[in-house]
Amino acid sequence: MAHELISHPFFQRLRGIKQLGLTSLVYPGACHTRFQHALGAMHLMNQAVEVLRHKGHEVNEFELEAAECAMLLHDIGHSPFSHALEFSIVPQLSHEDISAAMMYQLNSELNGRLSLAIAIFEDSYHKKFLHKLVSSQLDVDRLDYLRRDSFFSGVAEGAIGVERIIKMLDVVDNDVVVESKGMHSVEKFLIARRLMYWQVYLHKTVIAAEQLLVNIFNRAKQLSSQGETLFGAEALQFFLTHDLTREEIRKEENLYKFSTLADSDVDGAIKMWSLHPDKVLSKLCKKLTARHLPKIEISDSKFSGERVQEATLKAKKLLGLNDEEVAYFVQTDTLVNKAYSLTGDTIKILDKTGGLQNIYTASDMLSAAAFLHDTTKHFLCYPKELLQQE
Amino acid sequence: MAHELISHPFFQRLRGIKQLGLTSLVYPGACHTRFQHALGAMHLMNQAVEVLRHKGHEVNEFELEAAECAMLLHDIGHSPFSHALEFSIVPQLSHEDISAAMMYQLNSELNGRLSLAIAIFEDSYHKKFLHKLVSSQLDVDRLDYLRRDSFFSGVAEGAIGVERIIKMLDVVDNDVVVESKGMHSVEKFLIARRLMYWQVYLHKTVIAAEQLLVNIFNRAKQLSSQGETLFGAEALQFFLTHDLTREEIRKEENLYKFSTLADSDVDGAIKMWSLHPDKVLSKLCKKLTARHLPKIEISDSKFSGERVQEATLKAKKLLGLNDEEVAYFVQTDTLVNKAYSLTGDTIKILDKTGGLQNIYTASDMLSAAAFLHDTTKHFLCYPKELLQQE
Amino acid sequence: MAHELISHPFFQRLRGIKQLGLTSLVYPGACHTRFQHALGAMHLMNQAVEVLRHKGHEVNEFELEAAECAMLLHDIGHSPFSHALEFSIVPQLSHEDISAAMMYQLNSELNGRLSLAIAIFEDSYHKKFLHKLVSSQLDVDRLDYLRRDSFFSGVAEGAIGVERIIKMLDVVDNDVVVESKGMHSVEKFLIARRLMYWQVYLHKTVIAAEQLLVNIFNRAKQLSSQGETLFGAEALQFFLTHDLTREEIRKEENLYKFSTLADSDVDGAIKMWSLHPDKVLSKLCKKLTARHLPKIEISDSKFSGERVQEATLKAKKLLGLNDEEVAYFVQTDTLVNKAYSLTGDTIKILDKTGGLQNIYTASDMLSAAAFLHDTTKHFLCYPKELLQQE
Amino acid sequence: MAHELISHPFFQRLRGIKQLGLTSLVYPGACHTRFQHALGAMHLMNQAVEVLRHKGHEVNEFELEAAECAMLLHDIGHSPFSHALEFSIVPQLSHEDISAAMMYQLNSELNGRLSLAIAIFEDSYHKKFLHKLVSSQLDVDRLDYLRRDSFFSGVAEGAIGVERIIKMLDVVDNDVVVESKGMHSVEKFLIARRLMYWQVYLHKTVIAAEQLLVNIFNRAKQLSSQGETLFGAEALQFFLTHDLTREEIRKEENLYKFSTLADSDVDGAIKMWSLHPDKVLSKLCKKLTARHLPKIEISDSKFSGERVQEATLKAKKLLGLNDEEVAYFVQTDTLVNKAYSLTGDTIKILDKTGGLQNIYTASDMLSAAAFLHDTTKHFLCYPKELLQQE
Repeated sequence: MAHELISHPFFQRLRGIKQLGLTSLVYPGACHTRFQHALGAMHLMNQAVEVLRHKGHEVNEFELEAAECAMLLHDIGHSPFSHALEFSIVPQLSHEDISAAMMYQLNSELNGRLSLAIAIFEDSYHKKFLHKLVSSQLDVDRLDYLRRDSFFSGVAEGAIGVERIIKMLDVVDNDVVVESKGMHSVEKFLIARRLMYWQVYLHKTVIAAEQLLVNIFNRAKQLSSQGETLFGAEALQFFLTHDLTREEIRKEENLYKFSTLADSDVDGAIKMWSLHPDKVLSKLCKKLTARHLPKIEISDSKFSGERVQEATLKAKKLLGLNDEEVAYFVQTDTLVNKAYSLTGDTIKILDKTGGLQNIYTASDMLSAAAFLHDTTKHFLCYPKELLQQE
Repeated sequence: MAHELISHPFFQRLRGIKQLGLTSLVYPGACHTRFQHALGAMHLMNQAVEVLRHKGHEVNEFELEAAECAMLLHDIGHSPFSHALEFSIVPQLSHEDISAAMMYQLNSELNGRLSLAIAIFEDSYHKKFLHKLVSSQLDVDRLDYLRRDSFFSGVAEGAIGVERIIKMLDVVDNDVVVESKGMHSVEKFLIARRLMYWQVYLHKTVIAAEQLLVNIFNRAKQLSSQGETLFGAEALQFFLTHDLTREEIRKEENLYKFSTLADSDVDGAIKMWSLHPDKVLSKLCKKLTARHLPKIEISDSKFSGERVQEATLKAKKLLGLNDEEVAYFVQTDTLVNKAYSLTGDTIKILDKTGGLQNIYTASDMLSAAAFLHDTTKHFLCYPKELLQQE
Repeated sequence: MAHELISHPFFQRLRGIKQLGLTSLVYPGACHTRFQHALGAMHLMNQAVEVLRHKGHEVNEFELEAAECAMLLHDIGHSPFSHALEFSIVPQLSHEDISAAMMYQLNSELNGRLSLAIAIFEDSYHKKFLHKLVSSQLDVDRLDYLRRDSFFSGVAEGAIGVERIIKMLDVVDNDVVVESKGMHSVEKFLIARRLMYWQVYLHKTVIAAEQLLVNIFNRAKQLSSQGETLFGAEALQFFLTHDLTREEIRKEENLYKFSTLADSDVDGAIKMWSLHPDKVLSKLCKKLTARHLPKIEISDSKFSGERVQEATLKAKKLLGLNDEEVAYFVQTDTLVNKAYSLTGDTIKILDKTGGLQNIYTASDMLSAAAFLHDTTKHFLCYPKELLQQE
Repeated sequence: MAHELISHPFFQRLRGIKQLGLTSLVYPGACHTRFQHALGAMHLMNQAVEVLRHKGHEVNEFELEAAECAMLLHDIGHSPFSHALEFSIVPQLSHEDISAAMMYQLNSELNGRLSLAIAIFEDSYHKKFLHKLVSSQLDVDRLDYLRRDSFFSGVAEGAIGVERIIKMLDVVDNDVVVESKGMHSVEKFLIARRLMYWQVYLHKTVIAAEQLLVNIFNRAKQLSSQGETLFGAEALQFFLTHDLTREEIRKEENLYKFSTLADSDVDGAIKMWSLHPDKVLSKLCKKLTARHLPKIEISDSKFSGERVQEATLKAKKLLGLNDEEVAYFVQTDTLVNKAYSLTGDTIKILDKTGGLQNIYTASDMLSAAAFLHDTTKHFLCYPKELLQQE
């Protein structure tokens, strides 16, 4: 079944969606795609299940195939540029919502053969541990993307011991746990994940570029809502003028429209939009195309109203913008590097006597502030031209 | 100056051009771009010059900068999908021709500061060895792309000892030579290059996909020449309807048009063209989008007229095509894996007494048939549907 | 001068001393030697000084050479099996004491040319930052051994970003500091170091083997002190019967004796001693040779007197040992994984405004218990035969 | 059974025998041991058999275990320093002879349970393809040692695609063959092997060191035969005075004596022998210990009688040696880098139609002179002091 899914246009489209959106503007090697990640995650699921079987936990062939397909499809609903445009193309829906819609569509095309995969994905199957492998604080999704993103970005310090962690997995009380011998490797996984957030996922230049992209999309939507017809593929034009609801996205026709969108549609449109008569749209598009990214300042505390106001006024004056327009050029918002979640699907360490402990208690590393609280940083983003003025 | 060049739109466009065209259809990791390769080649040039300086050969700062810029720009004129569309978008010109045109344009924008780089690139500078580093049978271009393509495709056997080869370089009589201690590393470089040709650059599935892409372009051009306006960015539409000459491409306006083209324009257009009423165009586009690639047969000898005729007739009948149309679906042509060139810019080995020898004579590996003659293979390419008929 | 030092018998002997003592019994790849580490540390010193020079800190050629030689020699005084026999062969002296003695000897042979290296090593030179590179919580010694030990043991998770850390070094107020961009890499270095302690340096099976080795040595010394002449090279016999003081080791004759000792002398002797009539010595030696290592239990709390007594009694009975003899077979002691030291040579982070902060405060990772307090574990070690009895 | 064998003293001794003898004098990382190689080769055998099973060839559990044990033991009879002392410690017997003797001994200790492994090893089992995996021009022995020696020596260019080659293996007519898709990988394996011979196995400085070691042993044997008792472990002394025959080595007592010998015994003895009154022995030993290796000249043609005579006379005069003694200091001999053997166990390529071809014919690389004929080089080795005289 995996083979049929991989050949399906819903899946082949992932070849055209970069795993890390605009990150290649900072780390040029990070051109890898969701296609690679989905295949990799499926492969790790296979390895994880083999380890569990070897330790005496029964997983039959149907369950294995379903778990593999769940991994193959877990990110199928991503928009072009992945997270960067997640709430821009379909503003009301997360990529998980769209993934679910696509899985249901595929299930109907496959005459229900995906039902078990969906049950595992949605955690309605009684072998709960399979869902834990698909989605939890230590799932094969994270194992694959951390290793892959570290490899392609070249940030070698994000490397983790995937093989070792998988070998240490076990099942107790229907839950995935880690043998105590693997505790240090899991600690290292948590630490590497946090490092990857600061060095890659929340890299300030990447955030600045993403702000620009989102603003472009917002402006394009606004112009479209005013009746402008912007250059672009039919599907792109459709999504510029329709904010689909959860019910609407589930319609076959809309899903297939969505499924034709890839990074290239956005890239191509932005180049053409840079010639558009709307000053705001063309300016934003020119900046992204030429990699003239906004200046971004990062701070542990909120930027004061005065500071933001000052940047806004300067931008208005310098770029000749009105109040509505300047909002596309100056933004302030937050970045959050998540702590380890102490409740819910915690990571459990299995000691030799069969006892289970939350890794948070078992480890003397996770008492660090970094894992106790989410770390929130604030940013202020504005055109670089403002600096040259001073 | 390198910094100015990198920021220029001519160079930034390389971010959107995959180094290996459609190869990622076979090796999903091969999403790396010409942008990465150009930076890498510049870096190796810097290392090579440092080695030569260390061995007493004078290269001043201007010459080093010029040599670096020559590497940065050596591939600047590549079309979208690199070699795959090399003679489709601008049929009369090679990427080297367009690179030259772009360098001249940049030189005029930089008030002549690129003149030395161009002289080195065109081999009109008296320090001939600098040109040899830019372009020869053992240039830093090849050193970079072999290592890079091997890394991103995952074909680890193509790996070469770049650092070691560079350390062994020297200059004798204004020519780049290799110390005899480095001979085995150069042998291995030649062997790895040949292996990369068979495993990657001439991989049969990649060739099949490229055939499809070229046919799409040919059809689109034909329709355009008949007055059809196909979906696409303005620049794409321009090149569909104009076959520029060497003189025309040198016009600033045309170069800037060309410089807006990237893989995404072609990707986006092909998706839209798959809905076009022209049966041939839409069929070809659908096949590429869905990765339904042609069947390709490889043979050491030429395919007989009968064999080609048979495939042609079948395709006509099965797909309902006329004589003109079927030519877009059935092709036969050759693949050539180049031998080591015995004349011209041979690779010279420097022995301890100061004597020079063509590596071809010095090595007992290069007497292999593989290096003596170009290896030519023939392929026949036709729709996979023909097989299911039998 | 480095070349002269490397050729000296004091240095060549390091070829015969494994970096990690008996660790190859657990990680078979860990056969690397002190020779490799010393060369690697010298190389990193060179790189670090180049970075500092590049940032405007003057280090002249003599200082660079001296700093390199300090690294080359920093471990020159290690005993066979490195730390494992550190206080067995010369019980009263640490390897640093012996290193110092050897450096003084070499300095006299080199007519004082090592004086600057010694001054840097002993922190009496006014450019204090050079000493910091030689010895501190973030010195090139640690950078080299962590990477090297991780590589050869195959514990890939101990890998650290050596190049990046070195690039981030700077000097402020005569002290080595780290640019704030490098903070996460240093965090990761501290974390990797701790992980290497648990997975490699304090691996329980390695500790068990080292206990055995130390007991063999103790017994051999005791027998020697009773007038027995044990098999072995002259130098080994000398150290079995002489506990040198700091003054004595500084005598040229004794240093040269010491410098002939390598792992092979101990290996060879132990094989012969396994045939010795003394029951204790032969039994211990047979166990090590056959890799029949003691059982070792690890606990967070101290083993009770009863528990130790019980093991002791069992061992006496089972192996037919008297009170004095049993002490060679049953031991309890502690393992300590050091915290980050909050005082003294702390690691300082340099922010963009030039401010300095202890990494302990700057980082939200080091608040973990693991870095606050030394982690002490207790072990109890006894013959495996005792288990089969139960 | 593998576990029992690994625990046996015959196998544990391999921990003390370096895979590449004295090579670490040139490549300091090459400290890896026969122990690692034997485990690695067993592991690859397991992988190879899994691949063959997957392709439908039956290998039952007993056969798999036997094939694994054959790999585990294939090098069990190596002397200290592996090939370097192969015909010095037991002059009449190759390491294969001694391996066979040890296997028979182990088989008798295991009550015949090793019989199948021995049958496979000796090629008397009807499933001939299992022997081919153990020993042929493309066996798992070579796959392991090439990769391992390349890794630890740091000669990265010797790296080969072990996983890919193993995946391409198949069985036809009871013989191991390679699918045609794997041909380039096998070519690369043959090329890498040849490169490793020149860069590592036949490295001139390694050869010079080995000459020294062999001469030391020859002198020690001569002195022993004259009634001298040299320092050393009992087993070493035994082999210095006994040249065992094939029958004698098979005696349990002699095998156990041999099995106590490791590199350390030789290392330790040589250090003590450097103090011996015999001028020849002490001089040779001092040279090796201090890494004062002989000068070695390499030539494509034989050294003339005059040239050798000249070196001999100089050495006699300079070092005060008589005719008999000088033979320990001046030698001439040959180095052979083997071609691909065209007959016997050739490597067969399986094309898609089921046809088989000798890779020599199938490949256009192996027509190189390097694979057609053995390459023979000549060396002349003499004390470095002779050079300073001139």
